[in-house]
Amino acid sequence: MEIRDPIHGNIAVGPVEERIIDTPEMQRLRYIKQLDLSYLVFTGANNTRFEHSLGTMQVCKDLFLGALGRDEAEFSYVGLLHDIGHGPFSHLSEPYIERAIGKNHEQLGEERIRTSEISDIISDSGMSLNKILAYFRGSEKINVVGGALGADRIDYLMRDSLYTGVAYGIIDYDRLKTRLVLYKGRVAVLESGISGAESMLIARYFMHSNVYMHHAKVIAAQMLGKAMGMAVTERAIEPREMWDMTDEELLISLRKSGIKAVEDLTRRVVERRLYKRAYDGPIGPGVTLDEVKRAAGRAGLDDSEFIAHVIKLGGDTDDITVVDRDGRRVGKLTEVSPFIKTLMDVLARKRLIVACDRKNVAKLRAAVAKVV
Amino acid sequence: MEIRDPIHGNIAVGPVEERIIDTPEMQRLRYIKQLDLSYLVFTGANNTRFEHSLGTMQVCKDLFLGALGRDEAEFSYVGLLHDIGHGPFSHLSEPYIERAIGKNHEQLGEERIRTSEISDIISDSGMSLNKILAYFRGSEKINVVGGALGADRIDYLMRDSLYTGVAYGIIDYDRLKTRLVLYKGRVAVLESGISGAESMLIARYFMHSNVYMHHAKVIAAQMLGKAMGMAVTERAIEPREMWDMTDEELLISLRKSGIKAVEDLTRRVVERRLYKRAYDGPIGPGVTLDEVKRAAGRAGLDDSEFIAHVIKLGGDTDDITVVDRDGRRVGKLTEVSPFIKTLMDVLARKRLIVACDRKNVAKLRAAVAKVV
Amino acid sequence: MEIRDPIHGNIAVGPVEERIIDTPEMQRLRYIKQLDLSYLVFTGANNTRFEHSLGTMQVCKDLFLGALGRDEAEFSYVGLLHDIGHGPFSHLSEPYIERAIGKNHEQLGEERIRTSEISDIISDSGMSLNKILAYFRGSEKINVVGGALGADRIDYLMRDSLYTGVAYGIIDYDRLKTRLVLYKGRVAVLESGISGAESMLIARYFMHSNVYMHHAKVIAAQMLGKAMGMAVTERAIEPREMWDMTDEELLISLRKSGIKAVEDLTRRVVERRLYKRAYDGPIGPGVTLDEVKRAAGRAGLDDSEFIAHVIKLGGDTDDITVVDRDGRRVGKLTEVSPFIKTLMDVLARKRLIVACDRKNVAKLRAAVAKVV
Amino acid sequence: MEIRDPIHGNIAVGPVEERIIDTPEMQRLRYIKQLDLSYLVFTGANNTRFEHSLGTMQVCKDLFLGALGRDEAEFSYVGLLHDIGHGPFSHLSEPYIERAIGKNHEQLGEERIRTSEISDIISDSGMSLNKILAYFRGSEKINVVGGALGADRIDYLMRDSLYTGVAYGIIDYDRLKTRLVLYKGRVAVLESGISGAESMLIARYFMHSNVYMHHAKVIAAQMLGKAMGMAVTERAIEPREMWDMTDEELLISLRKSGIKAVEDLTRRVVERRLYKRAYDGPIGPGVTLDEVKRAAGRAGLDDSEFIAHVIKLGGDTDDITVVDRDGRRVGKLTEVSPFIKTLMDVLARKRLIVACDRKNVAKLRAAVAKVV
Repeated sequence: MEIRDPIHGNIAVGPVEERIIDTPEMQRLRYIKQLDLSYLVFTGANNTRFEHSLGTMQVCKDLFLGALGRDEAEFSYVGLLHDIGHGPFSHLSEPYIERAIGKNHEQLGEERIRTSEISDIISDSGMSLNKILAYFRGSEKINVVGGALGADRIDYLMRDSLYTGVAYGIIDYDRLKTRLVLYKGRVAVLESGISGAESMLIARYFMHSNVYMHHAKVIAAQMLGKAMGMAVTERAIEPREMWDMTDEELLISLRKSGIKAVEDLTRRVVERRLYKRAYDGPIGPGVTLDEVKRAAGRAGLDDSEFIAHVIKLGGDTDDITVVDRDGRRVGKLTEVSPFIKTLMDVLARKRLIVACDRKNVAKLRAAVAKVV
Repeated sequence: MEIRDPIHGNIAVGPVEERIIDTPEMQRLRYIKQLDLSYLVFTGANNTRFEHSLGTMQVCKDLFLGALGRDEAEFSYVGLLHDIGHGPFSHLSEPYIERAIGKNHEQLGEERIRTSEISDIISDSGMSLNKILAYFRGSEKINVVGGALGADRIDYLMRDSLYTGVAYGIIDYDRLKTRLVLYKGRVAVLESGISGAESMLIARYFMHSNVYMHHAKVIAAQMLGKAMGMAVTERAIEPREMWDMTDEELLISLRKSGIKAVEDLTRRVVERRLYKRAYDGPIGPGVTLDEVKRAAGRAGLDDSEFIAHVIKLGGDTDDITVVDRDGRRVGKLTEVSPFIKTLMDVLARKRLIVACDRKNVAKLRAAVAKVV
Repeated sequence: MEIRDPIHGNIAVGPVEERIIDTPEMQRLRYIKQLDLSYLVFTGANNTRFEHSLGTMQVCKDLFLGALGRDEAEFSYVGLLHDIGHGPFSHLSEPYIERAIGKNHEQLGEERIRTSEISDIISDSGMSLNKILAYFRGSEKINVVGGALGADRIDYLMRDSLYTGVAYGIIDYDRLKTRLVLYKGRVAVLESGISGAESMLIARYFMHSNVYMHHAKVIAAQMLGKAMGMAVTERAIEPREMWDMTDEELLISLRKSGIKAVEDLTRRVVERRLYKRAYDGPIGPGVTLDEVKRAAGRAGLDDSEFIAHVIKLGGDTDDITVVDRDGRRVGKLTEVSPFIKTLMDVLARKRLIVACDRKNVAKLRAAVAKVV
Repeated sequence: MEIRDPIHGNIAVGPVEERIIDTPEMQRLRYIKQLDLSYLVFTGANNTRFEHSLGTMQVCKDLFLGALGRDEAEFSYVGLLHDIGHGPFSHLSEPYIERAIGKNHEQLGEERIRTSEISDIISDSGMSLNKILAYFRGSEKINVVGGALGADRIDYLMRDSLYTGVAYGIIDYDRLKTRLVLYKGRVAVLESGISGAESMLIARYFMHSNVYMHHAKVIAAQMLGKAMGMAVTERAIEPREMWDMTDEELLISLRKSGIKAVEDLTRRVVERRLYKRAYDGPIGPGVTLDEVKRAAGRAGLDDSEFIAHVIKLGGDTDDITVVDRDGRRVGKLTEVSPFIKTLMDVLARKRLIVACDRKNVAKLRAAVAKVV
């Protein structure tokens, strides 16, 4: 079977992969947006985890066949399945689900595979289920899917650039994929691929600061997160039920939760009547989010009336080894590339966003200014 | 304000347009997919009526400013608002809503504008509400939005091509837009733009036969349509309430309708367990759809167990006048272009699709073969 | 080795292919433009036969590996070498060279391969030189390179669209290449690929009428052709020497030919001071080009003062067989597709272009009007 | 008039601009490649200074109309004319011409305008010739054409990316152009455009290290430069005549120069039989190019048998001021952006390339290793 894809053209799907795709667990990913509420800012950003899962599978195959020279079946299944544990709006619901259930989306991914037909399909195919589940348990050494130059990231940068219309994430994938190799069982980059790796990691940073962390998107996400948190705390929604929902099912549930603050917040998000920024900038090294929240409280705002969120990108870019044509280690990319060294510093920065209804912005701004 | 768009780059939005966009009626279009269930076949086809409405507004401005040389404010509002009357899944729900309410999506568009804040925003801006509503009443002569070479079509062809990954709809918009003029108050094409017009009309045909009328999409749509029809007939869903729903709200309502056949059909669609084709081909000139349905009945299939649908593209391409550089009429495009003449014939053809559960395909195939 | 290409991304080049590419005969193609004088109209159209040769090789590999399931080495060499026989400005110099030498560019291609190191490289590689030369002799049955849906055409449509900026030639190559098969030793198209084939053949027509046969390009080409013809006739340039020239070497030779009319015409072309149209339209069925030329003579114009040229696209589109999934013949594409039927008629049309210096346009127009 | 362009779509050309474009001095730029010998490495890189001149004019208009809010006629002429002073292969011939004539390409640009019909066309149009010539004299303050974020650079990054097929230079031009403003008469960037400016400057660096300074291109350029230098020194070619040549005219002249070393070097370049690298890496801070050349001499290589070249990108990126929404200075981009700070350091690095015929590589490598 072939599936038409705006990024990869035709994605060839083998019979086992087709059986996996046909399960309700995979079909559900059609209803989980890749970029949660980014569509409120970038109107084309309606792309889903489903197409990204297919794309990640394709990149896994490209990398294994083209560059890494390894048997690929299990890895392409990992690429296909890597997002299966997500709740509605992916990372947005994850903390609330994790707090209630005690598992993150990768651990829940393992659970979803084990408890569904998917594990049977894999076992029937003669592949090693354990080898696949190792990815979800974090015990898989090869970082082809999840690494700093992994298939997940390669696919989403290209895909999100297309749908948002923001060109920063256009990476030179054709070129990069010929420059990746395995070194001691992990994805490494050839010297001739340093520009490709630099370019991709910087592209990701630009996508983060311009798209993924666009202030209006962060505010919308925090508003909806607050609604989710309240709904879970007050047991208006059972966490396990929430985990199984699609994006829209959650929006509908929240709007019918019976809790006024939850319903109001959700309606504001859906109709894009978002909080306005009272603060958007650096946060002092010793300042905690709790202090910011207390300051808001002193300004007379109830916890449900504002959002305060600290963004820290963090960095796993120290992960990448550069090797020469003969397969010898040249060094870490952070040592070899001054850009990536700088990127590490930039990624370590913290940014605080505080927002509330327009009518309270002035007093919240004054209160926050005193503590940051 | 500027909105980032994958097709047009930056779409500039004026203050009045921004107020219109901010209404719940326009925001709702974020949750109505442009291509109803096409995402089940083309995994990227999650684009919405919202972005298309913005894009249509942009094309209206391009055409009026660039080529047609007319004041454009009302027309850009028409471009922005032209899809506001749609129910969930746009054209898919339209017949059920129209049958129950007695209004098509354009008449309902007028209603939505009149009964919402939108009419006040327009009146406040000093524009003529009547001039805008004329479009919805079908009494507007200028076919800049809805015509064969209109802004609606220009935007959706480019947009749907991008998201489906099917290149057929890529039209040479930059070139075409300099070749359109007004002739006797209607959009016409210059002689030097004949290729552009031909190319666009043929592109639309290819998109129809390959994307919009892809057999699996048609089957999914007919399955969901059948579910809608039953739900409305049995008053499990009030038609006016259905009209206000988003795509996902409808899917959820149908799955909770309390009518087993409705719930089953909807779940099959959502999980992509679609009917298989028993017939896909021409239908004899004298054969009616009812005869096909009766044949299925004789084969032992209940009305809820199969879909039978006749597709006829039809054509409004006889609409276009070709004019020379001095503004003189050269002829109709159908007279001047042998391709468009042929296209008219092709568009007049009828295609019948009949499908059912895999287990009944053989007997349904035999039954249909006897009548078509 | 890998070569970076704007159309195909990375083109992988094997060791034998690399040796062929490194010959002066292949390197010379870097200096032969793909679209002769089109760069005077489409400023980006500086693409060369060299990159097109690499691209055609790549498409041959894609088709053979992807779709046609045959061993491909000889065919990729044919793709790489198919344009090697061209003189300067390719088809533009061909009639003058053919008239003088008695061989067309394919027969000359055979000669260039035979008399250069290329034949040794091929023989050393263990491939069959005869199998490759069969293409140039026209005795090769498989139409993978030169056929209506062949690699030559696929590559140049995509490539010329990119460089001219005219979108008509964008074909859905990813899709098409999975829909071609071999039927009785020739390239055929699957039923599911009819749209792809139609789209490509129509795309070629639009590229012809809008780009390849753009009136200013045709005029420039005829002016330069006239200069070439005079230079060869008067032996200012030896035909065999002309055949070995690059585009620019020919332009320089013509401008130093010592024949004033040749030098003037060439300088006018280089500096883009082109003749203006006195006529551009259909030519009566019984009218010959000689009659037109005599009419110009009667108007007082010397043969070197005007150009008159009849364009007839012609069509090899009756070549394509449609087959079903089981490999059975469905019919000819011209029978199955009304668009291709129409295309055949359109391609059979003749168009006459007559042009001269601006100062003589009026009288030439009058003279031509009497005979066409 | 409209000119079709692969980057900008349609470029509108006004009557005065059209007259300028029609001069032989502008038409000549059709025969000067934008990227000199890069086509030997990137087979699509046949783009010319002509199309880039049109593109730069277009960007000037976009920036002035869209963002900078100033009357634009003179500036669009500067954009159109900015490369008119170039000799064959642009920057490659510049040092030899400058050494002989005492003027760089901008001073020669002024000369070409003054001594051709172009100055009359401009004066006739009522524009200020002096205002335009100020650019060529370096006395123009506004850096819209030549600055770090200027139209020249914006156009060539996008254009060179397209033709080379290397994605690094794809910049988000639609977005960037709305983020540039004038500050104290110079192009500055808004805070909201910092990512855009960073991205563009980093893109330029990647294009430099991967395309413009690709080792094979540098070697080819140095080989041809050596041939030019010898030909000029020995007066085989008059410098003023060389200045007027096109790329191909120069190649032909060099191959007929009568100086064997010049002819051999040029033929090697044309047929792509390039020198191989003996060294490609950093050069010690105290080491001069002369020391490297002397080392080659000691290894027994004549000056015509090797090339040695030091690349230093240098940086004018300290030029850019960041301003806030109210037009107030925020700081220099190098202060505000850690990436641009790092870029400055990277751009200050020196890289030495030494190359010779394959047979001498080993001994040259040994000799160079001792001194760098």
